[in-house]
Amino acid sequence: MSEIAVTERTRHRRMRENGSTRKEELDAVLAAGFVCHLAVVVDGTPMAVPTCYGATADTLYFHGSVASRSLAQDPAAEVCVTVTHVDGLSLARSVFEHGVNYRSVMVFGTPRVADGDEKLEGLRVLTEQCAPGQWDYARLPNRKELAATTLLALDLTEASVKIAAGPPEDGEGPDASLGLWAGNVPIRTVYGAPVPAPDLAPGIALPPHIAALRTEA
Amino acid sequence: MSEIAVTERTRHRRMRENGSTRKEELDAVLAAGFVCHLAVVVDGTPMAVPTCYGATADTLYFHGSVASRSLAQDPAAEVCVTVTHVDGLSLARSVFEHGVNYRSVMVFGTPRVADGDEKLEGLRVLTEQCAPGQWDYARLPNRKELAATTLLALDLTEASVKIAAGPPEDGEGPDASLGLWAGNVPIRTVYGAPVPAPDLAPGIALPPHIAALRTEA
Repeated sequence: MSEIAVTERTRHRRMRENGSTRKEELDAVLAAGFVCHLAVVVDGTPMAVPTCYGATADTLYFHGSVASRSLAQDPAAEVCVTVTHVDGLSLARSVFEHGVNYRSVMVFGTPRVADGDEKLEGLRVLTEQCAPGQWDYARLPNRKELAATTLLALDLTEASVKIAAGPPEDGEGPDASLGLWAGNVPIRTVYGAPVPAPDLAPGIALPPHIAALRTEA
Repeated sequence: MSEIAVTERTRHRRMRENGSTRKEELDAVLAAGFVCHLAVVVDGTPMAVPTCYGATADTLYFHGSVASRSLAQDPAAEVCVTVTHVDGLSLARSVFEHGVNYRSVMVFGTPRVADGDEKLEGLRVLTEQCAPGQWDYARLPNRKELAATTLLALDLTEASVKIAAGPPEDGEGPDASLGLWAGNVPIRTVYGAPVPAPDLAPGIALPPHIAALRTEA
């Protein structure tokens, strides 16, 4: 089992969350989603920008255009990429002990521009994380489209994993005698039935890899 | 219909998203969730920290402890609070035109500490946004718990709304002749069946307001 090195800014400080330094958990949280929030300083102002990402074992890829001109033009800026999955509500007997169950990763570092073979491979990773199967199905980027795309790569060397899970924890304190319900409400993300584009030509069947995304009855 | 004033950093620059300055849309996006990503600069490093929020018509509330010591101790720092709802995948004929349908709000400003009556009201707003009905049901914060809580308030005066919706848009270009499927895969967040805490005393019924959260069969 491999461990993530701990730095001053990834050292866990807070109580409720279960900080982890297991690389397997980092990988699992990153693999479970495709939208991150990119924190970057633009003209002195911190911004959290939602964008898609793709991750390999050692690199996270995202588009350079999202955080506006500044990051694409000057990628040598520190960023933080945060991925969060909300797993449920933790409803305690007291408001004070209420919480949210979640899995979250923060990755710190300075991105670099992915070029050449890495650019195409990074775009494949990003596309496949958002829409598995589409890289082999849809038309691939042509030279002009590739030139119009700035792909950034962030090493997964400095990262923090936090996981809050389980029931509320005030069942052994004085509040247990209040006679109030306590427990969890699970929350999850589901994929519905694919909707063909209104201008889709007749006779084009839904490919199995898109049908397979559906997780909702 | 009221409008949000546009500033240099909330002016919409990008193409695909449908930027909005309608206050109704800002309110609707904020009302549709309870987890935000707070961007803040800590010791020179931008961080995107997931946390819960509650919003009224003019103020967004969140806990000051989340962004570590620095924000709680020195709230006079600029932040950006971003709320994002992922609504689906937009699967075009070409990888280049792939996208994600989403609704997102970015709020910029310098938070202030909420005190006195506003602190209690802000905690109510935050609690009710995460767990509707719990403020009137669970035990409210006592003096000690209130003292241990730093609640920050951010005015909703400088905000940006972006909404990407609808089908992929390459149905009228040359890629339409490729014979590939194109369309959307809807994504949504669902609440499952409440799970009682393992140490819940027998005979305590699930309250209707918690049962009502469930959106999944």
